[in-house]
Amino acid sequence: MLDPVSWITENGQIVREYTKEIDTCQGKLRLIDQTLLPEKLVYVELDETEAIFDAIKRLVVRGAPAIGCAAAVGVAAVVRKSASQDAAVLRQLAITTADRLAESRPTAVNLFWALKKIKDAVSGIDNAAELRSTLLQTALNILDEDIAMCRAIGSFGAELLKDDMTVLTHCNAGALATGDYGTALSPVYVASENGMNIKVYSDETRPLLQGSRLTAWELNEAGVDVTTICDNMTAQVMKEGKVDMVIVGADRIAANGDAANKIGTYGVAILAEYHNIPFYVAAPYSTFDLSLESGDEIPIEQRDGDEVRKGCGKLTAPEEVNVYNPAFDVTPNELIAGIITEKGIIRAPFEENIKKILG
Amino acid sequence: MLDPVSWITENGQIVREYTKEIDTCQGKLRLIDQTLLPEKLVYVELDETEAIFDAIKRLVVRGAPAIGCAAAVGVAAVVRKSASQDAAVLRQLAITTADRLAESRPTAVNLFWALKKIKDAVSGIDNAAELRSTLLQTALNILDEDIAMCRAIGSFGAELLKDDMTVLTHCNAGALATGDYGTALSPVYVASENGMNIKVYSDETRPLLQGSRLTAWELNEAGVDVTTICDNMTAQVMKEGKVDMVIVGADRIAANGDAANKIGTYGVAILAEYHNIPFYVAAPYSTFDLSLESGDEIPIEQRDGDEVRKGCGKLTAPEEVNVYNPAFDVTPNELIAGIITEKGIIRAPFEENIKKILG
Repeated sequence: MLDPVSWITENGQIVREYTKEIDTCQGKLRLIDQTLLPEKLVYVELDETEAIFDAIKRLVVRGAPAIGCAAAVGVAAVVRKSASQDAAVLRQLAITTADRLAESRPTAVNLFWALKKIKDAVSGIDNAAELRSTLLQTALNILDEDIAMCRAIGSFGAELLKDDMTVLTHCNAGALATGDYGTALSPVYVASENGMNIKVYSDETRPLLQGSRLTAWELNEAGVDVTTICDNMTAQVMKEGKVDMVIVGADRIAANGDAANKIGTYGVAILAEYHNIPFYVAAPYSTFDLSLESGDEIPIEQRDGDEVRKGCGKLTAPEEVNVYNPAFDVTPNELIAGIITEKGIIRAPFEENIKKILG
Repeated sequence: MLDPVSWITENGQIVREYTKEIDTCQGKLRLIDQTLLPEKLVYVELDETEAIFDAIKRLVVRGAPAIGCAAAVGVAAVVRKSASQDAAVLRQLAITTADRLAESRPTAVNLFWALKKIKDAVSGIDNAAELRSTLLQTALNILDEDIAMCRAIGSFGAELLKDDMTVLTHCNAGALATGDYGTALSPVYVASENGMNIKVYSDETRPLLQGSRLTAWELNEAGVDVTTICDNMTAQVMKEGKVDMVIVGADRIAANGDAANKIGTYGVAILAEYHNIPFYVAAPYSTFDLSLESGDEIPIEQRDGDEVRKGCGKLTAPEEVNVYNPAFDVTPNELIAGIITEKGIIRAPFEENIKKILG
């Protein structure tokens, strides 16, 4: 599998799980630079606060779970680099680094969650070596938990799939967005691992093209049969009987199951219903926001029109023309066949069943 | 208005209507190079078969009615250029040119219709000068008829509009797709001319972005309030109550009213139905192909995957990844509120009413 986020030791060992061994040597945060995909696969190694801040800000690493993992491992790298043997100095360094990284993407909930875990972990440790150890262990545990979450979603989701099925997905909720198998793509990876022949259609997902740049790339790298289509070809592909199931990720899910995800998801859900194709959302339980009764309460971020006008490298609309560029939309629960979580698949009635499974 | 297709005399006179005067001098087919919009407004002048073939193939000129006009005027230009004084030679040149141009785009029925008119016009003419004249006159009549057709569609369509309404359109069935006001955009131009305040949402229409590059450009040039959105934002814009009506063009309409149009149209029709928004097709009667019982018989042109991978100027999908790139889709008649033609608006039951209005 890809290693979108990992720890690399000074000996070049790629690590995603904490062991006593790696504790004896230096190391850095290692990321795939996703801004260069699909043209180049370049890994960057980072151990300086501002460089890590910049990597998150510039979307070198993206996808809410991946950002959380990267920030946590990043703090461990910055502290490990320090020559200080004073636990108080190192603790302070961990805290200021975490606070700085928290400013990189102000809306990413997983980022704050991961950085809080890091800050909590170092409180009260008075030994510098132990502090370095604890930090690395905590960071790699966050990564490890994320990997376990992906695999669990994959296992539950794979039960929905049969040999020779074709899945359509939108945007990128794959390995590149998480520590490992992704959310929406994890069922595909797990089913493929189990010997099933699963094909994928990947909507290119304008304006930032995460579907064609990232999803198509990572599935292709993994040897999964993937076909990219423009967003406006989804209906035709469905009409031709080429899609058995839709699986997408989510950015936020309300208490009634309404799910916010990348712009275009809502339209795909309507088209799936029209063609009698089951539409699934795959997301960890940390995506649920039970304080929101319905999707109507989820604010829709509006982004700069130049993403549409100039996002592809050349001018694709007149510079002076109005652009409407909502980044997300909300799919109402009645269009959703089920929500695949690491604790199982939630089905209608959603409000009741979400409460049941999430406690 | 714009002159997407015209005749330019050797003296630089732009002509859209045949007169005896222009018959005395040489001339060429003049086209806006639509591949360069919205960055540059460049006109090209052509009088060689392969250059005209290439211009249609490469979408320098596109839009079914404009292609028909361009091909007809193109044949006139090629024949006019020939030094031969032998009517039989010129007639043969007209026929081989027409046959070659007919191979440039497989779906556009107007192309075949216009070229048949051209071939019919030259049959039995034994005088070279008369043949040249007849060809130019026939070609410019096709353009002239097209302009009249656009205006008539606009007048019928404008009756559907009220002040402050917003129309969503897909691709470009505007001035740039025809000789003049367009088909889908003609009601907007006519209503605006009549003093109504009509707003337009223009789907950008991947992969070739005719909606953002062309529709947004020409409406903006004409002073109409236009907003560009990515194709995957249509559902969200409809959900927000921002769209009162959809009007699109058509490339071919079957006897039962099923309408082939630019890829994505079928999806827009489904989304319109879901949101209870009336979906209209605007097209001249030359678009109807009564030899086809239903849309199932309309062949769908498949285009090169590199339009999707590389169409925007930089690589937007891995070079080696599969791409499915159908250029058209077919909207079934049950999703269509009406077909706006130059003879009136046709409504369900379509098969019966199409026969009635088209004879």
